[in-house]
Amino acid sequence: MANWIVLLVAFASVNLSLSVRELEYSTPQSCKELKQTYKITQDGLYYLSTPSGVVYQTYCDMTTAGGGWTLVASVHENNLYGKCTTGDRWSSQQGGSPNVPEGDGSWSNTVTFGTAEAATSDDFKNPGYYGIRAEDVAVWHVPNNELVGRWKLTSFLRYHTETKFLNNYGGNLYNLFKQFPVKYNVGSCPANHGPSVPVVYDVGSATSNHNLYGPNIRANSVPGFITFRAINAERAAMAICSGVKPTGCNNEHCCIGGGGHFPEQSPRQCGDFTSFDWNGYGANTEWSASKQITEAAVLIFYR
Amino acid sequence: MANWIVLLVAFASVNLSLSVRELEYSTPQSCKELKQTYKITQDGLYYLSTPSGVVYQTYCDMTTAGGGWTLVASVHENNLYGKCTTGDRWSSQQGGSPNVPEGDGSWSNTVTFGTAEAATSDDFKNPGYYGIRAEDVAVWHVPNNELVGRWKLTSFLRYHTETKFLNNYGGNLYNLFKQFPVKYNVGSCPANHGPSVPVVYDVGSATSNHNLYGPNIRANSVPGFITFRAINAERAAMAICSGVKPTGCNNEHCCIGGGGHFPEQSPRQCGDFTSFDWNGYGANTEWSASKQITEAAVLIFYR
Amino acid sequence: MANWIVLLVAFASVNLSLSVRELEYSTPQSCKELKQTYKITQDGLYYLSTPSGVVYQTYCDMTTAGGGWTLVASVHENNLYGKCTTGDRWSSQQGGSPNVPEGDGSWSNTVTFGTAEAATSDDFKNPGYYGIRAEDVAVWHVPNNELVGRWKLTSFLRYHTETKFLNNYGGNLYNLFKQFPVKYNVGSCPANHGPSVPVVYDVGSATSNHNLYGPNIRANSVPGFITFRAINAERAAMAICSGVKPTGCNNEHCCIGGGGHFPEQSPRQCGDFTSFDWNGYGANTEWSASKQITEAAVLIFYR
Repeated sequence: MANWIVLLVAFASVNLSLSVRELEYSTPQSCKELKQTYKITQDGLYYLSTPSGVVYQTYCDMTTAGGGWTLVASVHENNLYGKCTTGDRWSSQQGGSPNVPEGDGSWSNTVTFGTAEAATSDDFKNPGYYGIRAEDVAVWHVPNNELVGRWKLTSFLRYHTETKFLNNYGGNLYNLFKQFPVKYNVGSCPANHGPSVPVVYDVGSATSNHNLYGPNIRANSVPGFITFRAINAERAAMAICSGVKPTGCNNEHCCIGGGGHFPEQSPRQCGDFTSFDWNGYGANTEWSASKQITEAAVLIFYR
Repeated sequence: MANWIVLLVAFASVNLSLSVRELEYSTPQSCKELKQTYKITQDGLYYLSTPSGVVYQTYCDMTTAGGGWTLVASVHENNLYGKCTTGDRWSSQQGGSPNVPEGDGSWSNTVTFGTAEAATSDDFKNPGYYGIRAEDVAVWHVPNNELVGRWKLTSFLRYHTETKFLNNYGGNLYNLFKQFPVKYNVGSCPANHGPSVPVVYDVGSATSNHNLYGPNIRANSVPGFITFRAINAERAAMAICSGVKPTGCNNEHCCIGGGGHFPEQSPRQCGDFTSFDWNGYGANTEWSASKQITEAAVLIFYR
Repeated sequence: MANWIVLLVAFASVNLSLSVRELEYSTPQSCKELKQTYKITQDGLYYLSTPSGVVYQTYCDMTTAGGGWTLVASVHENNLYGKCTTGDRWSSQQGGSPNVPEGDGSWSNTVTFGTAEAATSDDFKNPGYYGIRAEDVAVWHVPNNELVGRWKLTSFLRYHTETKFLNNYGGNLYNLFKQFPVKYNVGSCPANHGPSVPVVYDVGSATSNHNLYGPNIRANSVPGFITFRAINAERAAMAICSGVKPTGCNNEHCCIGGGGHFPEQSPRQCGDFTSFDWNGYGANTEWSASKQITEAAVLIFYR
């Protein structure tokens, strides 16, 4: 059955062309579908297709909390000393100017980059990020340059949501961030923060999660949530506060991704990991995050 | 079972590679072939192959003026304030120095980048750009960040050639630009301009096309043509003047793409959309282009 | 016939998902396997798979010294005047700061970039670089922007190893460079150089190879070897000294690739082709390399 369907797809995609609509009903489009329809239960790299027939390969977590999690993106800090320079694809590669308030715009466009195998060594975004209709997200913090087979072993923080919150925001982060643009000066802190969703920990805990950030930001946030589109005191926008809900407005010390402009000492807070190094690289004192979280990629999954 | 399937891959990839010449006559290599040989009539994303067996996916326009148009490239201005910086793949990412007269060289090399689905959000170039042998070109101006399904609806300017001019220039733009290098200081204005080819409008008109540029450049150009490899007063080279034939030499205000060096107030005119902002971003006064054309990607098709 | 084959490819590639482990023993994973198991003897582009099921296309040299050589990477200098700027993927795109001692880290991570067809026009690295288990390497110096079909014709220097040295270093350069990091300040010259392996010339000779470098560096090196992870007087690290074994410590004039920081007149020696232009671009006097080697891509093969 599965093979027969796949045969149709192959015929459609290479010999080109049954319509997009027909493809929609014939190729696995998520790890969840692979698990439910094709009974795949092994973690690893799989080929998926978008409704428009784009075939891509990504990692599926088939075991955590029921499995069926599709890796759609990773946020990797290639150089925390480079402030919105080459490699800052989740914020800006344009230098941090107010002329580019949205930066590269990756959070709400269809541009893709990187590969699943290199997801801990480079920024990664696949067509599933905008093409999959999902309900929940999972996040893994995996040390940089780890091989796929070791991600589960070496990840020091892993959590997922269970509220099906994405149903209220268009079914994926692409649509969520269309509603909550990651753009400088679109709103103020705390009035215009996006949703904070409670999380369930698979590796680590609210406490260990909180301790990855500097003591000053711990005093200005609550662990156990994932927050989307936070804003700081200077109206800079950030995409994701991993594992925390901000209660203050210096959120550039616990949130990742962002628009293209961070006014305070610009461009010092601009970059994929924003201002994790404010009081020293990996210092984990005052506002600085720990070396552990600074040197780990943030993998984002859908289900 | 899986072993059996995998053996098929082995067998197939061997033969696929073996029969480069066979593939030339058996796998669709253009949307024109898809339409004529496979009778496909629906616009959308399709898989094509190059003569060398590179498989890629792109968009086919199967309906305009007989259909069979293959999307091979898009020129997208990611940051008009960045002058030959990251993202200026159709001019230079090297800063605008005379040491790099050809810039990134994308107009006449085989480097590819981007994806069809993101063609209005990022620069795009597929193997069809150099691998397809075509006769005519079509150009669409589509607002940035539009989804594939809305390109036709939202494009405000669309035209095509009907003269089969590419037969005289090697069958594609890759070969045309080998004859007319997009390189600083290879010639003078107007003596060494490349061909200007009359166009037929599918959306918009010569007048609406002309009005997208600043009044000063309107006085120095004639609409209703597409011009290749224009040169300006300072011997900078540009790739395409969309919808116009220059009659003066300040062509950096109506032409896109370019070499790596623009002498006048260097690098102020250097970038994928050259000097569309000379008298203000989107101002559409004096030499400045309109906001509409400044914030739209230029999609290039072959047939 | 060919359509049927293409159909099998796609059929199988979607099904690759079904089994990662079984793939290890069934899909061609190198040009050597294509030659030995499938009796392919024609040079050209072929599809291969990694043990993890990543399918990619690359060039196979099926004839030199028994054939079965897989192209896994190319080092291309896009702008020798740009010192560790955009396009320096085999050194650093981050500007040459001591804060990024490993630069982009491409020599020992799984990030991939470029395409086989554009291997002489852009940096190239495919999954074979880290996924293939090989014994020997071959290196070709091919003029920039040459088409695949002309590489053999136009290459002016080609050599290979026959010692099976990779068996001692993990079977590929990815693992070799894990043992010998291409990173600033990991060791001193000459104490901590990596292996120098004797080579056999297929095109050119030890003498013609030597003459491609400046006279001063000729006096400080011996031709007829390929050297990995050389270090210079200021403790900067370089990846490959093509065709030579350094006997001095100014190795930035005959080695390519590198970490992110070169202390001497920083960043003047930082880049994919390090300091080939120290006494003038292409001058081939004092420490400067010839124009011929400066404007040629370095293609790296495994067998």
